[in-house]
Amino acid sequence: MPELRQDPVSSRWVIISAERGRQRLQVESAKATGEKFCPFCYGHEDKTPPEILAYREPDSESDGPGWWIRVVPNKFPALEIEGELEKQGEGIYDTISGVGAHEVIIETPDHFSRLEDLEPRFVGEVLWAYRDRIRDLRNDPRLKYIMVFKNCGESAGASLEHPHSQLIATPIVPKRVAVELAGSQRYYRYKERCVFCDIIRQEEASKERVIGGNDGFIAISPFAARFPFEAWILPRKHSSEFDVQSREQIDRLAVLLKETLLRMSRSLNYPPYNFMLHISPLQEGNLNYYHWHLEVIPHLTSIAGFEWGTGFHINPTPPEEAAAYLRSIDITKSAENAASQAK
Amino acid sequence: MPELRQDPVSSRWVIISAERGRQRLQVESAKATGEKFCPFCYGHEDKTPPEILAYREPDSESDGPGWWIRVVPNKFPALEIEGELEKQGEGIYDTISGVGAHEVIIETPDHFSRLEDLEPRFVGEVLWAYRDRIRDLRNDPRLKYIMVFKNCGESAGASLEHPHSQLIATPIVPKRVAVELAGSQRYYRYKERCVFCDIIRQEEASKERVIGGNDGFIAISPFAARFPFEAWILPRKHSSEFDVQSREQIDRLAVLLKETLLRMSRSLNYPPYNFMLHISPLQEGNLNYYHWHLEVIPHLTSIAGFEWGTGFHINPTPPEEAAAYLRSIDITKSAENAASQAK
Repeated sequence: MPELRQDPVSSRWVIISAERGRQRLQVESAKATGEKFCPFCYGHEDKTPPEILAYREPDSESDGPGWWIRVVPNKFPALEIEGELEKQGEGIYDTISGVGAHEVIIETPDHFSRLEDLEPRFVGEVLWAYRDRIRDLRNDPRLKYIMVFKNCGESAGASLEHPHSQLIATPIVPKRVAVELAGSQRYYRYKERCVFCDIIRQEEASKERVIGGNDGFIAISPFAARFPFEAWILPRKHSSEFDVQSREQIDRLAVLLKETLLRMSRSLNYPPYNFMLHISPLQEGNLNYYHWHLEVIPHLTSIAGFEWGTGFHINPTPPEEAAAYLRSIDITKSAENAASQAK
Repeated sequence: MPELRQDPVSSRWVIISAERGRQRLQVESAKATGEKFCPFCYGHEDKTPPEILAYREPDSESDGPGWWIRVVPNKFPALEIEGELEKQGEGIYDTISGVGAHEVIIETPDHFSRLEDLEPRFVGEVLWAYRDRIRDLRNDPRLKYIMVFKNCGESAGASLEHPHSQLIATPIVPKRVAVELAGSQRYYRYKERCVFCDIIRQEEASKERVIGGNDGFIAISPFAARFPFEAWILPRKHSSEFDVQSREQIDRLAVLLKETLLRMSRSLNYPPYNFMLHISPLQEGNLNYYHWHLEVIPHLTSIAGFEWGTGFHINPTPPEEAAAYLRSIDITKSAENAASQAK
């Protein structure tokens, strides 16, 4: 019989319905083809807006070669950095001017190296760029929240296939973030413990939804997973802020993120996916009730009317099965083969 | 400059960012190809579970020919009608057994007739079947909510292309519905008016987001539309319940739904879409603060990490532009051509 499960953070329910079966999972591959001209490739630095930040050779010049990470403004920004934050009414409706930041983190000069193909220290550099950008944008008092995310594959919303992530800084705290914050605060008031710390403790004990882990982090398929093979990577040490993490901690995350993405790529045929960095709002400091983490969602099913109408997701793959399957993938053996195949 | 707009019902924000431009809209067509065997086609009645309801010739037999609408259980149900409603805990986690109903409304015997190609009275029959099924399922005290929805096209979640809609009855009130209810109740307490009635009044006055209308209903592109060309169809007469509507009222909805879908099909190349019928929970009676309506969302953009992380949607097409464009489509002229082309 199917099962309804409630997420202890946001209180949303999902339907875990194994009967709907694996035949409904898509196997579209999001591997790069290199067919179109790519403005993010090495040597095309003049095809993007001027870089905001780059990790590059000491003697190299801005917007020229010699880089391994570049951060540039999005050419078609959803929000714009210039302008006043104005609130307006229009009868019963409310608007705010679209002030904010929309940046692209180009993760590697190589069009065909997926993030998980990079050496761990270069994955660490990508995460370190997130940290640098959050630290900088924190100084802008108009900004209330920063969402760092990655779209990989067309059906996951990527319009360019070159490995990149993005950040959008918003002038208000988004609703879904507010719901998560309120839920974890409610839990904290009741239990005087962080709900994410409790999740880590219970998952660690039961093991059945654990995908992997190391000294600093644990990767799980969450109890109320919305999507088949959804994975959350959580730091074992409580903190609600990402940009105060040490280089050592970031590097541990890099290792586990690489491993988790490799498990997905190899077992699910390089699926389109998103990941989202969940952190506390910029002006709140380190919250005792919220716990920063990374959520990874491969796209193997389509979102349908039921989900849009209810907010309920139907997940045909129980997270226990997903975790067992991802755990079973041997990622040490053919790492180089897979990386060269990806080219 | 982009604009953030707040939905007055659910309080969610969207980013209306025309700068991101039309080039990002997909033009994938969801027209039927008829390539695969179809269990919903005329003559294949034995390929579905036995019918729950059918509108058919008086002397015809169940699960045989002679029908124009059939309602059957979903062969791969997300929830199951047999069983007890049991709540269980698992440490910090909560579960409920997956009791509910999952039914398919086959809208026509003809594989290639899209819903909007049917004559208005047959569209009315489809809506009447929704009404009949809601009336019947209302008798089951385990069920708290019914979501009627339609998935058209693979990327909108449809696994079969034969025109059909579905309903899922759930043992709890879904979160998104609860948020809408709470938002409209808050508005009612403050203003002593229904927020949807106020929306209709303001849209009627300004006209800029009106797509169409008739005596009973109005079709608008909502102020804080999440998706390009999103449309809501609202009854002018306040009611929170769908299944108490008269045949006359249902037929008026049929006319406007057909018109609205025709406008989308002809102007956007038969896009994949969903629609969702929003009604009040089963056991609440007619609420003075909630207003039933139908939401239609064509799929022209992909949902990306930012949306998943924040709940914020980025919509590149201002609803004023979308409404003006849909209004401008002449749907009277080539109705028959379009219908035969669809075959």
